[in-house]
Amino acid sequence: MILKKICVVVTARPSYSRIKTALLALKAHKDVQLQLVVAASALLERYGTAVNYMEADGFTIDAKVFNVLEGENLTAAAKTTGIGILELSSVFENLQPDIVVTVADRFETMATAIAASYMNIPLAHIQGGEVTGNIDEKVRHSITKLADYHLVASQDAEHRVLKLGEDPTSVFNTGCPSIDLAREVKKLSSLQFYPYTTYGGVGAKPDLSQGYWVVMQHPVTNEYKDSRTHIETTLDAIRQYTDLPVIWFWPNVDAGSDGTSTGIRSYRERFNLDHVHFFKNMKGDDFLNLLDHSKGLIGNSSVGIRECSYLGVPVINIGSRQNRRQRGANVIDVGYSTADILQAMQKILTNPRPASENIYGNGDAGKNIAEVLANVELKFHKTISY
Amino acid sequence: MILKKICVVVTARPSYSRIKTALLALKAHKDVQLQLVVAASALLERYGTAVNYMEADGFTIDAKVFNVLEGENLTAAAKTTGIGILELSSVFENLQPDIVVTVADRFETMATAIAASYMNIPLAHIQGGEVTGNIDEKVRHSITKLADYHLVASQDAEHRVLKLGEDPTSVFNTGCPSIDLAREVKKLSSLQFYPYTTYGGVGAKPDLSQGYWVVMQHPVTNEYKDSRTHIETTLDAIRQYTDLPVIWFWPNVDAGSDGTSTGIRSYRERFNLDHVHFFKNMKGDDFLNLLDHSKGLIGNSSVGIRECSYLGVPVINIGSRQNRRQRGANVIDVGYSTADILQAMQKILTNPRPASENIYGNGDAGKNIAEVLANVELKFHKTISY
Amino acid sequence: MILKKICVVVTARPSYSRIKTALLALKAHKDVQLQLVVAASALLERYGTAVNYMEADGFTIDAKVFNVLEGENLTAAAKTTGIGILELSSVFENLQPDIVVTVADRFETMATAIAASYMNIPLAHIQGGEVTGNIDEKVRHSITKLADYHLVASQDAEHRVLKLGEDPTSVFNTGCPSIDLAREVKKLSSLQFYPYTTYGGVGAKPDLSQGYWVVMQHPVTNEYKDSRTHIETTLDAIRQYTDLPVIWFWPNVDAGSDGTSTGIRSYRERFNLDHVHFFKNMKGDDFLNLLDHSKGLIGNSSVGIRECSYLGVPVINIGSRQNRRQRGANVIDVGYSTADILQAMQKILTNPRPASENIYGNGDAGKNIAEVLANVELKFHKTISY
Amino acid sequence: MILKKICVVVTARPSYSRIKTALLALKAHKDVQLQLVVAASALLERYGTAVNYMEADGFTIDAKVFNVLEGENLTAAAKTTGIGILELSSVFENLQPDIVVTVADRFETMATAIAASYMNIPLAHIQGGEVTGNIDEKVRHSITKLADYHLVASQDAEHRVLKLGEDPTSVFNTGCPSIDLAREVKKLSSLQFYPYTTYGGVGAKPDLSQGYWVVMQHPVTNEYKDSRTHIETTLDAIRQYTDLPVIWFWPNVDAGSDGTSTGIRSYRERFNLDHVHFFKNMKGDDFLNLLDHSKGLIGNSSVGIRECSYLGVPVINIGSRQNRRQRGANVIDVGYSTADILQAMQKILTNPRPASENIYGNGDAGKNIAEVLANVELKFHKTISY
Repeated sequence: MILKKICVVVTARPSYSRIKTALLALKAHKDVQLQLVVAASALLERYGTAVNYMEADGFTIDAKVFNVLEGENLTAAAKTTGIGILELSSVFENLQPDIVVTVADRFETMATAIAASYMNIPLAHIQGGEVTGNIDEKVRHSITKLADYHLVASQDAEHRVLKLGEDPTSVFNTGCPSIDLAREVKKLSSLQFYPYTTYGGVGAKPDLSQGYWVVMQHPVTNEYKDSRTHIETTLDAIRQYTDLPVIWFWPNVDAGSDGTSTGIRSYRERFNLDHVHFFKNMKGDDFLNLLDHSKGLIGNSSVGIRECSYLGVPVINIGSRQNRRQRGANVIDVGYSTADILQAMQKILTNPRPASENIYGNGDAGKNIAEVLANVELKFHKTISY
Repeated sequence: MILKKICVVVTARPSYSRIKTALLALKAHKDVQLQLVVAASALLERYGTAVNYMEADGFTIDAKVFNVLEGENLTAAAKTTGIGILELSSVFENLQPDIVVTVADRFETMATAIAASYMNIPLAHIQGGEVTGNIDEKVRHSITKLADYHLVASQDAEHRVLKLGEDPTSVFNTGCPSIDLAREVKKLSSLQFYPYTTYGGVGAKPDLSQGYWVVMQHPVTNEYKDSRTHIETTLDAIRQYTDLPVIWFWPNVDAGSDGTSTGIRSYRERFNLDHVHFFKNMKGDDFLNLLDHSKGLIGNSSVGIRECSYLGVPVINIGSRQNRRQRGANVIDVGYSTADILQAMQKILTNPRPASENIYGNGDAGKNIAEVLANVELKFHKTISY
Repeated sequence: MILKKICVVVTARPSYSRIKTALLALKAHKDVQLQLVVAASALLERYGTAVNYMEADGFTIDAKVFNVLEGENLTAAAKTTGIGILELSSVFENLQPDIVVTVADRFETMATAIAASYMNIPLAHIQGGEVTGNIDEKVRHSITKLADYHLVASQDAEHRVLKLGEDPTSVFNTGCPSIDLAREVKKLSSLQFYPYTTYGGVGAKPDLSQGYWVVMQHPVTNEYKDSRTHIETTLDAIRQYTDLPVIWFWPNVDAGSDGTSTGIRSYRERFNLDHVHFFKNMKGDDFLNLLDHSKGLIGNSSVGIRECSYLGVPVINIGSRQNRRQRGANVIDVGYSTADILQAMQKILTNPRPASENIYGNGDAGKNIAEVLANVELKFHKTISY
Repeated sequence: MILKKICVVVTARPSYSRIKTALLALKAHKDVQLQLVVAASALLERYGTAVNYMEADGFTIDAKVFNVLEGENLTAAAKTTGIGILELSSVFENLQPDIVVTVADRFETMATAIAASYMNIPLAHIQGGEVTGNIDEKVRHSITKLADYHLVASQDAEHRVLKLGEDPTSVFNTGCPSIDLAREVKKLSSLQFYPYTTYGGVGAKPDLSQGYWVVMQHPVTNEYKDSRTHIETTLDAIRQYTDLPVIWFWPNVDAGSDGTSTGIRSYRERFNLDHVHFFKNMKGDDFLNLLDHSKGLIGNSSVGIRECSYLGVPVINIGSRQNRRQRGANVIDVGYSTADILQAMQKILTNPRPASENIYGNGDAGKNIAEVLANVELKFHKTISY
């Protein structure tokens, strides 16, 4: 029997976390040959070298695509996408996949979508239909209109993709694979590793046994000129709050990440942050395990909206990055304000822990996705439904 | 007063014809500085060097972008788009436009859309919301989701863009500028030029005074492997039908155009086509004037759907390329069949001339477009309406 | 035993003819795994699709690289080279060759040289050390300075490469593989095929039994603005000379080839050329067989300097393209002058046939090249000898 | 009078230091319009943003070219060059320079050379003819063969360029502009600035008044896999030697710089380096002023060979990076050995200060270069002299 060649392109560390259980299910599926392409910041050391975790998780990488043009400005983001198309089209010619899978909505995922759709290769899009309100949203819905199959993560997203005129037989609410990982992690009754030893990192090494906060704040594409000011607002809050230790994660690569990174680096030189430790990144399960036993997550990561709602971890969501994403009772939204962040931290410590919610699935998304892709009929011809 | 810099990117001969009156109105508008970028096949001799007509029409070209990668296969189309992003992002950096305008739905227009939207430059899309059913349709709706303003050509298109979740204040039914040109041409009572003298071309030079047919048939992206067979079906019909002369236009550059071009070239070597003359291209007004006095248009050009419905020119529309486009009573749809083409030709000659219809506007689209762009508020931040 | 992976990049039809016997010898060599990459105009139909001949000759293509940017101007030549580097570096990453081989001096061969040398892959250059006097010469010597091994075609070239400071142990005078083919062809006592039937082509089909001329004239890079004038000078001569038939070959792809092609195409429309037939290309051995039985070659192809000196075929070499290349007694050099061309034709018809010369080897170059590459020590570190 | 447009492309911080006085002289020259293009790492913050210094020095930047592809491996270096060609050819089309100037021998300078020479723009090369023995040397001599004018920095280099077959009328020994700056700096009797205040940086802030060492060690292209080991050897020496403070400069961007940077960063986390301060970069004159009053320079920068020989600053030159470069009595060559480095430091402290030498000119190179370029006849056609 000829296996169906399903080619998944992973372009960033968070995308891998989000898709990992689907990759495992695809790899294990008897009718599928998984082709794994790793590209963009997922290959780069200063963004956490996600590729190393993939290999450690037992995946074989079929192609590596270096396409990040340095510059950390918007022009570089456009050019990175252009180079991505040049490179990925060659990769697809070599691999001859039956289906290409692109994940979520980072700007460079458009390169995957264009290369595949222009080459008449059926395109599956994971996590379409959500709503955020910046360039990610333009990218996400734009990819929906190029994609032939839509594997969405919530009912909300499913309705939106259908409204966009997609054929109902091509839309599948599989839940979000990130919840699969969260389900495994939720079973663990304590922190399973000692972060400083396992992941190194830099900064102080405060005792975590009495609880700790986690911070992860990315630059926002259409506010990138303010990224340094934004990060400093949060840094001020953390500097003033010294009751509990803080685990801080470096931002991912986006226009403006230099402002964010530089802001953090410069702040560290100016101030003592004796209760703060910095990590570049962690394996997804360790990261969720860390979150699960934290007092709460501060920043603007989608992990706060998604995994944390399932885990029941309190979240202080800062600024506009997660605007209009469907969220649970665990989220407190605040602006770029030191006072508001500090106030929310107090509120969390005094309130009871939020309950677990199922908005983004109940932990079997990876299998659902693999099953859909293995069984779906191949097609690359579509037309709008209205 | 500071003029609003409006940058229009033209990538192909037919796009220029379609946008010309809008360009003239933008150039004449007191509040606007028109920036004109010519790219892709619009620069290439073997596709008619549209750029020469633009210069002859009095336009100054602000930048030329060569991005067509030779290969005439689908991979080359993807790579052409990638190179287009690399080049256009540099052009936009140099020109610093306030608004970028992309026209219609050819695959390489996506490069304009991505470069502009990723660089946070407000993006206007002309002729979104239509429906065809091949890669053009994926591209068109995908660009709608990247664009900040939508200048659509018909009521049908307007409704579709709104259904796609766009903000109603950003959607404008301006009509199609191609109709503006048709309105001018429609006033002319006879053929205003002698084609062989004015445009050279190759082949026989039959007498046109007793009427003639026009043929224009492009390859269809997702059927490109059959492009040679398809063109030969039409060639067979034309070879068998020798009652009236035929004016044949070479196809534009698409994956498969080599099959189409080669098919025509090879056919000419094998058969005498003493009643057929071949042109690479014509100025838009001459082309419409030629159509207006023809017996009818044969092929799959959108001109048949659009300008010919206004002009009341009979059209034999072959195959799937114009599927689901709103059309008038002037169109007879046929498959790739020599017999059906011949039968439709007979039917046209025996039936009365179709009436003029206003589906795509009444001839003031150019001015409408210029007015909208001159007055619209600058923004590049949007979110889906549902 | 592990085979040495030798990767040869062929970018044009004439390069293939020139390297074919070396490819055969490499393919047959017991210690070698031949990796064949076909790129640039060697893949394109309008330049003769050399790749088809390679496959017909039994070669397997390991990678195809489309990198020709349309434009036929000097900027496009530069960009074609840039794209070539992007693509070839990916190809070399996939193929992991032990040695990369680049052939001769066309502008795009620099892409091969840069990709390989920058990636620390030992680079062999075939046909360095020659002298011509235009951009080809800059390219050729520039590649010599990037290359680790030099397989030159004549004593003259060997001396020049040594003077350029290369290590004598890295320079090998193997002779030119094109002579290997010429040696085989020289044994044939008559034309082995009927050109019109075997190769199609366009134009008149004059009787060749009483003798014929062959024309092959390429545009000259640094004179590309004059390419149309230059070709018309030759066309005028051929139009005036109608005593014998003429077999004319279309030019290769260079900046200016559009001027040359357009010149020929337009001339054909204006004038009857009842004694001229046009071919796009031929298999190398058929082409030499055709030359061997012709009255002489007219134009500026290096075949006139090289293979024709071995075959003893008279050559009218027009213009500067072959300047300073070592040549035999078979060559008459003329300027861009209709009169001079006509006069040289008369002279050839009245003089005795030139003798065979061995300037570029005696027919075993292919084997020599394979042997050198199979046995050479791997290295990519060098320094100038003075 | 029409000014001669001379376009200089600067791709890295050290190249700017090396060319600065020539840029000033070109800017001031009455017959010249200077066009300044800044590209590659010269634009990037993590390599010192040389462009900021240029602007602070009063230069206007005509174009910025982002072409560094992230990856810090050899493939990325090749691709960076390919992207550079794509971008620079567009820049040259816009600027229409009469002459393009490329500086020295970093891998990406080849992009400048190819774009200019392929576009028939006369190309001047500064600092050709030197000898080092790694990929830089291949690049340097390869550019010599593409360049039309050679502005060399020493008699040694002049002889070598002539031996490479260049026309003697195109070779000019102007001296090295870096010496111009050194001449100005040499007049200063003390350190003119307080480094920690002026340049920030990270690490300890030891008192410099009793003397200090300077360290600058770059990765070596063809040893990039060992770059971490190499830098650690030097770090070990500096850690063991605590008698005097050390000013350490981060490496430039090359394949392997990540190993070097990571090595330093990780070392800082593991060990206390209380006598070491780290800078990203400095303005060229401040850097030379710092060197001039130091005990000596340790590492493999060409500054040690060139400016330091004029300044009479002792240099410990580590490893192969400066192999075969003509050097003065101020240089002690050592291998990658902690012991040898420590021993050389002792030797320097006990020996008398070396005398100033004139190997690379006497301080008027900038004016010489401007004068040559202003007066040279335009040409892009050349042939080898033998």
